[in-house]
Amino acid sequence: MSEPEKNENIPEASARKGISNIGNTAKSKEDFNLAAIYVSDAQYNRNVYFDTLPQAVRLYMLYNHWALKVLLYFFMLVNLSLAIFEDPAVYPLPIWATMLVEILCLLIFTIRLIHYAKVILRDKFWKDPKNICIIVILTLRRAFRSIRNALPQIFYVFLLFMFSILIFSLMALKLLGKRGLTNINGTPYFTSYLEIMFDLYVLVTTANSPDVMMPAYNANFFFAVFFIVYILINTYIFMSVFLAVVYNSYKKYLKEEVRQLVRAKRHKMVRAFGVLQEQREEGGEPVVTQASWNQLVRLVQPNLSNAHRELLWSVSDDKNQGAIGKVAFVQLADLLNIEIITIKSRPHPLQSLCPSLYQSAPSKLLCQLVQHRAFVMVYDLIILVNAVFIGLDEENPMIANSEWVFLALYILEILLKLYVFEPRVFFSKHSFWNWFDTIIVISALIATIINSVMKSSSHFSSRQILDIVFILRVLRLIRVVDSIKRFRIIINTLIRIGPAILTFGQLIIVVYYIFAMVGMELFKGKVTFYEQSSTNLAKAYCGNPLLNGTDFAKLNYCKNNFNNVVSSFILLVELTVVNQWHVLSSGFATVTHISARIFFVLFHIIVVIVILNIFVAFVLEAFFVEYSVDKSDLQTSLERKIEELELAVAQETMEDNLVNAMETIDNDLGGSQSAKPNLPSLMFKIASKRYRTVDALLQRIFEADLDPEDFAENDDPETQGNENFANPLFSHA
Amino acid sequence: MSEPEKNENIPEASARKGISNIGNTAKSKEDFNLAAIYVSDAQYNRNVYFDTLPQAVRLYMLYNHWALKVLLYFFMLVNLSLAIFEDPAVYPLPIWATMLVEILCLLIFTIRLIHYAKVILRDKFWKDPKNICIIVILTLRRAFRSIRNALPQIFYVFLLFMFSILIFSLMALKLLGKRGLTNINGTPYFTSYLEIMFDLYVLVTTANSPDVMMPAYNANFFFAVFFIVYILINTYIFMSVFLAVVYNSYKKYLKEEVRQLVRAKRHKMVRAFGVLQEQREEGGEPVVTQASWNQLVRLVQPNLSNAHRELLWSVSDDKNQGAIGKVAFVQLADLLNIEIITIKSRPHPLQSLCPSLYQSAPSKLLCQLVQHRAFVMVYDLIILVNAVFIGLDEENPMIANSEWVFLALYILEILLKLYVFEPRVFFSKHSFWNWFDTIIVISALIATIINSVMKSSSHFSSRQILDIVFILRVLRLIRVVDSIKRFRIIINTLIRIGPAILTFGQLIIVVYYIFAMVGMELFKGKVTFYEQSSTNLAKAYCGNPLLNGTDFAKLNYCKNNFNNVVSSFILLVELTVVNQWHVLSSGFATVTHISARIFFVLFHIIVVIVILNIFVAFVLEAFFVEYSVDKSDLQTSLERKIEELELAVAQETMEDNLVNAMETIDNDLGGSQSAKPNLPSLMFKIASKRYRTVDALLQRIFEADLDPEDFAENDDPETQGNENFANPLFSHA
Repeated sequence: MSEPEKNENIPEASARKGISNIGNTAKSKEDFNLAAIYVSDAQYNRNVYFDTLPQAVRLYMLYNHWALKVLLYFFMLVNLSLAIFEDPAVYPLPIWATMLVEILCLLIFTIRLIHYAKVILRDKFWKDPKNICIIVILTLRRAFRSIRNALPQIFYVFLLFMFSILIFSLMALKLLGKRGLTNINGTPYFTSYLEIMFDLYVLVTTANSPDVMMPAYNANFFFAVFFIVYILINTYIFMSVFLAVVYNSYKKYLKEEVRQLVRAKRHKMVRAFGVLQEQREEGGEPVVTQASWNQLVRLVQPNLSNAHRELLWSVSDDKNQGAIGKVAFVQLADLLNIEIITIKSRPHPLQSLCPSLYQSAPSKLLCQLVQHRAFVMVYDLIILVNAVFIGLDEENPMIANSEWVFLALYILEILLKLYVFEPRVFFSKHSFWNWFDTIIVISALIATIINSVMKSSSHFSSRQILDIVFILRVLRLIRVVDSIKRFRIIINTLIRIGPAILTFGQLIIVVYYIFAMVGMELFKGKVTFYEQSSTNLAKAYCGNPLLNGTDFAKLNYCKNNFNNVVSSFILLVELTVVNQWHVLSSGFATVTHISARIFFVLFHIIVVIVILNIFVAFVLEAFFVEYSVDKSDLQTSLERKIEELELAVAQETMEDNLVNAMETIDNDLGGSQSAKPNLPSLMFKIASKRYRTVDALLQRIFEADLDPEDFAENDDPETQGNENFANPLFSHA
Repeated sequence: MSEPEKNENIPEASARKGISNIGNTAKSKEDFNLAAIYVSDAQYNRNVYFDTLPQAVRLYMLYNHWALKVLLYFFMLVNLSLAIFEDPAVYPLPIWATMLVEILCLLIFTIRLIHYAKVILRDKFWKDPKNICIIVILTLRRAFRSIRNALPQIFYVFLLFMFSILIFSLMALKLLGKRGLTNINGTPYFTSYLEIMFDLYVLVTTANSPDVMMPAYNANFFFAVFFIVYILINTYIFMSVFLAVVYNSYKKYLKEEVRQLVRAKRHKMVRAFGVLQEQREEGGEPVVTQASWNQLVRLVQPNLSNAHRELLWSVSDDKNQGAIGKVAFVQLADLLNIEIITIKSRPHPLQSLCPSLYQSAPSKLLCQLVQHRAFVMVYDLIILVNAVFIGLDEENPMIANSEWVFLALYILEILLKLYVFEPRVFFSKHSFWNWFDTIIVISALIATIINSVMKSSSHFSSRQILDIVFILRVLRLIRVVDSIKRFRIIINTLIRIGPAILTFGQLIIVVYYIFAMVGMELFKGKVTFYEQSSTNLAKAYCGNPLLNGTDFAKLNYCKNNFNNVVSSFILLVELTVVNQWHVLSSGFATVTHISARIFFVLFHIIVVIVILNIFVAFVLEAFFVEYSVDKSDLQTSLERKIEELELAVAQETMEDNLVNAMETIDNDLGGSQSAKPNLPSLMFKIASKRYRTVDALLQRIFEADLDPEDFAENDDPETQGNENFANPLFSHA
């Protein structure tokens, strides 16, 4: 790399201080802070153009502190959940209390905003008045953007779909309207164009099939053909096309988004490199020394073990030169994102305490027994027997007492395993099923004891405690799934894509929240729910005479109302499931106005047609990525390094990867040193492909298309202009 | 290629005749027949190892004749549709009549089978007693195989899904069974384990949401959480996983299937080449001369125009050597499959008849007017006005008479276009919308005339004629779609993947047929439908006292029965749409036995979970292929050749491709010679990507993964052993 190019890469911080870093080996604390900020921004894909003055950098580090973030999220949650206590309330609180909390929340938000304004380049912030609004939806930006991006594509398909409904409605009106047919309740069938349109729209959701066609079908066989053609075209073909269009544009959009994210990340890493770079010999390539690198990583991730850090360094500095160039440095952000499990091969505590007893022949036999396949099978059998007992009547004293036997058996299992396996390995962070088992069994033990104490003291068992006991008993049965390898693979896949799915959960919650607010504004108090014990005559029509005789009242849907935020959410879930949504929407239209149906149709279009399809597209894509289990280059090189250093966990004991193996009960790590005598005291293993963030998953999806050598170097902040809060555009690079 | 290799490739026909083809330029008619059979087998992906004796080859050519095939399909259809006339009959026929037809059908099938046995290698046929069974399902083999292949993958997910239902049912029993809750009809709520399982299975299909949760929800808010978690896991997550698993294994399976198809095709082409090959100079590569090639193509596709054949030859013989080698020859099957539109640029007939009038200024002005954008817009406006008039009450004489005005306007439009455009181009094979328009308008004209004649003669308009008139009027409105480019693209995509979708239609029909037969056996006559005018008291409970008071009777579902094949099919469609299927299945369980539900659950699993998911996967895949519009290499080279020869249709007048352009009314081909004066009298254009067969579409999907140079040459029929009717396995190649 020639001199002029290097000069371009010197960041503003150094430039402002008037110090050139070339050949300057003494780095100030500020330099490390700045570089650390760049690296952690790159690691977590943050896109904030902060001020690079030392003071602003310190403020920005504080801004990114996890405690402040948790605080913010907590108050956001508090603010949102105020809806439960404000009128219409589930649990009413006095107005001064909710007001006070609201003011507190607003105060916190304002402080956070001021903090943010101080962090970023001041002249940029005030350039764009939209910023403040944007900050509010910043966290949901990506998900929203993906929808916004898919909309124009869907729009034309949607128009065509609506056109098809219009044509079919017109045909239905002409064919069926004049025949004097009647609905089941005696009203005329298919005579109003608007009603037909609504009915046929509902038929797309299948909610009123086959009722809507019965009058015509009863009149003549051939009218069924009309409805079958309609369902084929609009329900099957169009809905598949919606999914295809959403899936396609979603994928295209994600690809572009991820490409920009990766470029921005590399750009930040290059800046960090610029801050810390030194020149070892005149005219040579600029490098970062191991000392600077160590100090940087300690700043970025203070809780990283020394051994882990040394491993990362040895991957970066492959040729052992004591310094790394730009290409190797840029990998750091990705390296930090690879989760590595450090396994300390420790002797069992009992072995240290009384080695003679633990190494004795009966003890060894016990260890072998517990690790045997038959042990797992015996316990699977016990669980199955337990399942049968749970199904039986628990009033029978024999059955009730058997519960104690099962509990004892489960506790014995855990104790035996703790005897055989090293406890810290047994309860390591990734041993999901061990944790699950232990927590369930201990909770069940406590709840059962409390229940029997209450029963013997007052001859009365609390319903709540009993419920908990039952739930825990049934949950215990899930353990069987873990014994069957095929099931374990499916479950692990689901668990792995879980966090990514949660992002959509956020989006759906926000959309639900908006609809719940609007719904409460429109329909609050129109429908009243009376307790079952109530003798009020209004109970039969949900307290609203207009509902008298409607399906809504007949089906006893009174509790499906918008009277408070919780019942609104439950109602919206029911609308998302779609079935009977025409009864629900007609009910609310009856108590207000026919145009209220627009609210429900809108909800269906946004949530079911758009968001649920994106959700399905996402699950499909994530599942395919999981199926094609090929690791990234970086992961492979890290693994190679681990193996080179002979610190790898022995492969033959692994089924699939460590996480899988540790999640099974038949692995033999951490105990039974007899089997593998010469293990090093420290071992590493890459922690499967659990994605901490959605970004990581997305990046994996599109990794193959990205050029690893593309550094996007020649973009400077000036050209990014208004893109302050959006991802930078590197199209000119 | 060395001599010994060539010898291996000499097919049995020549070998049997004892003639070596090397250096032998005189080909017998038998040779051409044999080569033609190989080529057309390759073109249509047939996999029959026929006897290569000249007599057998002639028999095989007869066997493949389209008329014999149509006859076979016709009698298959007749045989299947006997179900309409046999007891339980829609239209009862005397038993001797149906028996006679059945015997006739069986006779035809037997003749076909004997023909087949004569065609194939005799010793092979009788080796495997399964053959006769296999022949029967031969046509549906592929679709069935794709399901069979996806099953093991789905099976474990399905088991896990059932396990999840079992666990949730147990929890529901424990949580809700003891609370003394009641359903809306007063029966106890969630007390029987089997009932809970069925209810929760139905909830997965969403058919009983939210009714199944209302009693619990009315008792306590928190029970809603149980149902929401259940729906989230089982309805959304598991159903998406089903789709993902089906999609994934479907794709994997298809890839393997298509790879084998392509290899078999190349293998056959190599054999055809072996039959026709000659050596022009000693030691040179074997080639096929243009004369042999021409004779072959004339045999394979007699209706191919000379110009078209010459074009194909010039693509194959790129260097104008008068002969082609093996690689170029093998392409022939694919080249024949590319649909090419031959456009003869002919003058308008009117121009030949009275050139002075047709070339006059007013005539030219008219041509320009009709081709103007405004013309299209005016007619779009007319259609919209027409739509409004259709929606209005047709009893009004003003409205009724307006229909004549609209009809006149539409006929005028067609006449004007026929004046401007060359009629044979206007009604060419690919002008879908022109045909659509003309047929609709003329039918509407005829129907309206008949209707008004009947009305004026007898003052009575037939309901059937009126229905047809209405349907035609509404169908005319669809034309608007064609004017909007975005819509046209979507519609064209749908039309293109249509034939491929029909294959699934066949599969679904067969599955429906099987279920209809079993259903009629089980439930025939259990439910009776009474006409609306009937005063029979049994009408209220569908003629079966057991149904008295059930939802089935209350919702007037009596016509949803298995009493004949037509109503069985309609009922199965309703079950496929899923909504209310629990009411239908419970109805039939009530009149027979509770275990009848197994029939309905089985139908749901097979049709909705498996087949519909494969359908969705197929539509998605086909849509993605359509989106990524890149042509195959062969198509590109064909297009390049067409352009080289300057026979291409001018690109600037095309919107997207010729088919699109011809389907629009604003194209200006075939008439208005004034615009493009020096067009050649003959032009070619590749006819878009319409797939004549599903195979062609599938091949396109996976084309990229296939090695174009892989000829799979060294497999001889001996090693294929039992694979006589399956696709040959070339894994040893």
